[in-house]
Amino acid sequence: MCPHDAAVEAGLETGLETAFTIDASRVTFGAGSLAEVGPRVRAHLPDGGRVALFTDARLRALEWYDAATTSLVGAGLDVVTFDEVLVEPTDESVDRAVAFARDTRPDAFVSLGGGSVIDTAKLADLLATHPGELADYVNAPLGAARPVPGPLKPHLACPTTSGTGSEVTGIAIFDLLSAHAKTGVASPLLRPTEAVVDPRATSTLPAGVVAASGLDVLCHAVESLTARPFTTRPAPEPPTTRPAGQGANPWSDVGAARAIEVIGTHLRRAVADSTDEEARHQMMWAATLAGIAFGNAGVHVPHAMAYAVAGRVRDYRPEGYPPDHPLVPHGFAVAVNAPAAFRALAPTAPARHLEAARLLGADTSGAGPDEAGEAVATAVAALMRDVGAPNGISGVGYAAADVPDLVAGAAPQRRLLDNAPSEVREPELERIFHDALRCW
Amino acid sequence: MCPHDAAVEAGLETGLETAFTIDASRVTFGAGSLAEVGPRVRAHLPDGGRVALFTDARLRALEWYDAATTSLVGAGLDVVTFDEVLVEPTDESVDRAVAFARDTRPDAFVSLGGGSVIDTAKLADLLATHPGELADYVNAPLGAARPVPGPLKPHLACPTTSGTGSEVTGIAIFDLLSAHAKTGVASPLLRPTEAVVDPRATSTLPAGVVAASGLDVLCHAVESLTARPFTTRPAPEPPTTRPAGQGANPWSDVGAARAIEVIGTHLRRAVADSTDEEARHQMMWAATLAGIAFGNAGVHVPHAMAYAVAGRVRDYRPEGYPPDHPLVPHGFAVAVNAPAAFRALAPTAPARHLEAARLLGADTSGAGPDEAGEAVATAVAALMRDVGAPNGISGVGYAAADVPDLVAGAAPQRRLLDNAPSEVREPELERIFHDALRCW
Ligand SMILES: NC(=O)c1ccc[n+]([C@@H]2O[C@H](COP(=O)([O-])OP(=O)(O)OC[C@H]3O[C@@H](n4cnc5c(N)ncnc54)[C@H](O)[C@@H]3O)[C@@H](O)[C@H]2O)c1
Ligand SMILES: NC(=O)c1ccc[n+]([C@@H]2O[C@H](COP(=O)([O-])OP(=O)(O)OC[C@H]3O[C@@H](n4cnc5c(N)ncnc54)[C@H](O)[C@@H]3O)[C@@H](O)[C@H]2O)c1
Ligand SMILES: [Zn+2]
Ligand SMILES: [Zn+2]
Repeated sequence: MCPHDAAVEAGLETGLETAFTIDASRVTFGAGSLAEVGPRVRAHLPDGGRVALFTDARLRALEWYDAATTSLVGAGLDVVTFDEVLVEPTDESVDRAVAFARDTRPDAFVSLGGGSVIDTAKLADLLATHPGELADYVNAPLGAARPVPGPLKPHLACPTTSGTGSEVTGIAIFDLLSAHAKTGVASPLLRPTEAVVDPRATSTLPAGVVAASGLDVLCHAVESLTARPFTTRPAPEPPTTRPAGQGANPWSDVGAARAIEVIGTHLRRAVADSTDEEARHQMMWAATLAGIAFGNAGVHVPHAMAYAVAGRVRDYRPEGYPPDHPLVPHGFAVAVNAPAAFRALAPTAPARHLEAARLLGADTSGAGPDEAGEAVATAVAALMRDVGAPNGISGVGYAAADVPDLVAGAAPQRRLLDNAPSEVREPELERIFHDALRCW
Repeated sequence: MCPHDAAVEAGLETGLETAFTIDASRVTFGAGSLAEVGPRVRAHLPDGGRVALFTDARLRALEWYDAATTSLVGAGLDVVTFDEVLVEPTDESVDRAVAFARDTRPDAFVSLGGGSVIDTAKLADLLATHPGELADYVNAPLGAARPVPGPLKPHLACPTTSGTGSEVTGIAIFDLLSAHAKTGVASPLLRPTEAVVDPRATSTLPAGVVAASGLDVLCHAVESLTARPFTTRPAPEPPTTRPAGQGANPWSDVGAARAIEVIGTHLRRAVADSTDEEARHQMMWAATLAGIAFGNAGVHVPHAMAYAVAGRVRDYRPEGYPPDHPLVPHGFAVAVNAPAAFRALAPTAPARHLEAARLLGADTSGAGPDEAGEAVATAVAALMRDVGAPNGISGVGYAAADVPDLVAGAAPQRRLLDNAPSEVREPELERIFHDALRCW
């Protein structure tokens, strides 16, 4: 009997979970698919109407913006554009987007950009469709965690980074300035109605963004693969309330494994050469696959730690990102913790950590369970180094003295920490943050 | 540049397809999940209402029926049961189901059974929700191929065989008695709203049904993997009309590959021992995965040929199936053609055929492209033999003299034949049917 099945048997007696639920949006993937945005939105608005197109200032000046608007206008839709999305959004920048949506009362939303744009559009759709303020819906403990009352307006998400996978998840993340911490809203109802993924958009991505967003993809996939098995969670009542972060399951395993393989063969090339179309398109595909995987499994410790790392940044200004404000790109904020986190967690789930290392291209033949943590940590760190990632949390400006603060920032992320294969509380976080000061 | 990408580049100049669209329903998978049917239907009918539960006579007497009805009644729903689904449905048996649905006017449909039950429920939902008769919606050339006018009533599909994958596809198949041929209706709108897959139901499956439906799963997966690449199809206008049978694509590849691996390790065990829970549960998972894959890629030659093989059966009465009427179970009707079809098609797509053989457990190290057809044909035939499948079309009662008739029955299945990696018309069908007289 396989471990899953054995646990399932046990579950039926102990109140543990015995099933998982897969949700996936309609995804159109392919070169030139931005030309489909208009007809696809129109299919949801047979009588036409107004579309709010969300993007950021840099994207507005690129050809992808023209492709999307031409398609929307060609489908007989009115387009109003909001191009003030902040890279790594904050509650303030989201509030401006919400005000725009409440003023213009669109019938549908289109987001064209990276995770910053897609997440902002999700929140604007939520708060233009339903009453209340951002804080009402934000995850506990920072927010009131009010459930999303019902369906939102149609939202077509067009990612232009490779990438967060936000186009297929029900999560929206931002920086709550007052709390110096990242937080978010999570609900299946936030999942965009459709995703239109045009990998050609990656041709204009700066190498720094390919690197950071590619490491985000890697962590989505490895964290999905190594999350606690769904069978170890208590079964929810009613079963329709099963969370999206339900733990590793046979479905997310398939997508996560394939994404890791693709990253292992293509990320270095995609970063090194902006004209390597195959590598850049493959990374876009890995991003979508990993998004589908983690959207049905959930991420865990590296992401939980990232909320603190990104929320407390002082003056890191990475290459390829807008120079106007300091930020740790989400992908780097996650990856700097990853080798240390996997090293710490591998003893509880050695087979899966070894498998991740192998899929990433490491030679794991003959490696025993004791070597799993080191194998995956080394493989991830080598990739980070090759693509120019910061060397651990010290690489983005933290020192050992900051660890208590970082622990305090990460410890409340129970939703994520509880999705780890073993218990992670303050003492474990402290050890992992110390180990994460440098990755190599 | 990978073959997909090269073709994509070409496509932008030639009017060929450059994108693919993934559609997948919500799937709940796990032991005991039949207990979720009630709350899940209720979530679609907040004010309660009447549910038509479709099943067949054998299933009605099994504990799975009690589990489903208890859950539905417990959720405050009224249940009316139709248990007269015919195994391998015909237009006549479907008409009876439609009459039931038109009489009882349910607010939602639940199907509990194999593909016969789920397909019948799809058609009953269609014709109780929209006007017209079965023939109006049937695929050309046998029917008028009228497009499904709009959404159907909510339908929760609970498969009990491992299995057709019908719970996640927009296809419904039946035997058109007047034409002596299988045909069907295909529309994304037929796809059940949710699937609830309880692998425990497989514990009561006769070995013969595990074998036949397991070979169906194998063919769904191998045909998806070897279908013509999506990039070789003309791009549809508007792009929102892309067919579900869009050809092999990176998404279907992932699910199909994993399904083949699972079948290679578990089908023999699942057939041999009804108490081998791991093997039976894994085959149920393979069925769902392959369903998701072929629902987004399409099947091709073995399935096209099966329509003729099943439609003209005279007196084959397989073990494990109801003895009241002769039938070739769909899985056998498909599999008997598979080795010959793959042997014939492999020269156009040798890498993918070799990969299928490898995933099924064959040693393909050092095998060249010329050996691909034989490798996959041998691996499939060996598995068929081990699970007690009929030995080619002669095993279900056909002789060489029947080949012209069989060709005439299969040739009109252009939707499927056009999804093959190379052109298949009457002469090719004739050769393949002759080669399919025996598999070993
Ligand atoms: N919702 C989710 O499921 C989810 C998952 C992971 C991360 N996130 C969030 O997403 C955000 C990060 O998103 P991201 O990594 O996609 O980057 P991003 O949206 O912050 O964009 C990074 C930079 O790249 C630029 N850019 C984007 N596409 C471009 C293109 N095609 N050509 C040139 N420049 C381009 C942007 O203008 C920006 O300057 C973070 O806020 C993170 O927390 C959300
Ligand atoms: N819609 C699609 O996408 C699709 C795909 C492939 C095949 N099909 C169609 O599905 C039909 C075949 O379906 P199938 O292979 O699932 O078999 P089936 O529904 O015909 O059932 C076969 C037999 O198994 C019995 N049975 C089913 N579940 C059982 C259980 N748990 N315990 C004991 N007995 C059980 C049934 O009563 C029946 O006697 C064919 O008509 C075929 O054309 C449809
Ligand atoms: Zn992330
Ligand atoms: Zn089939």
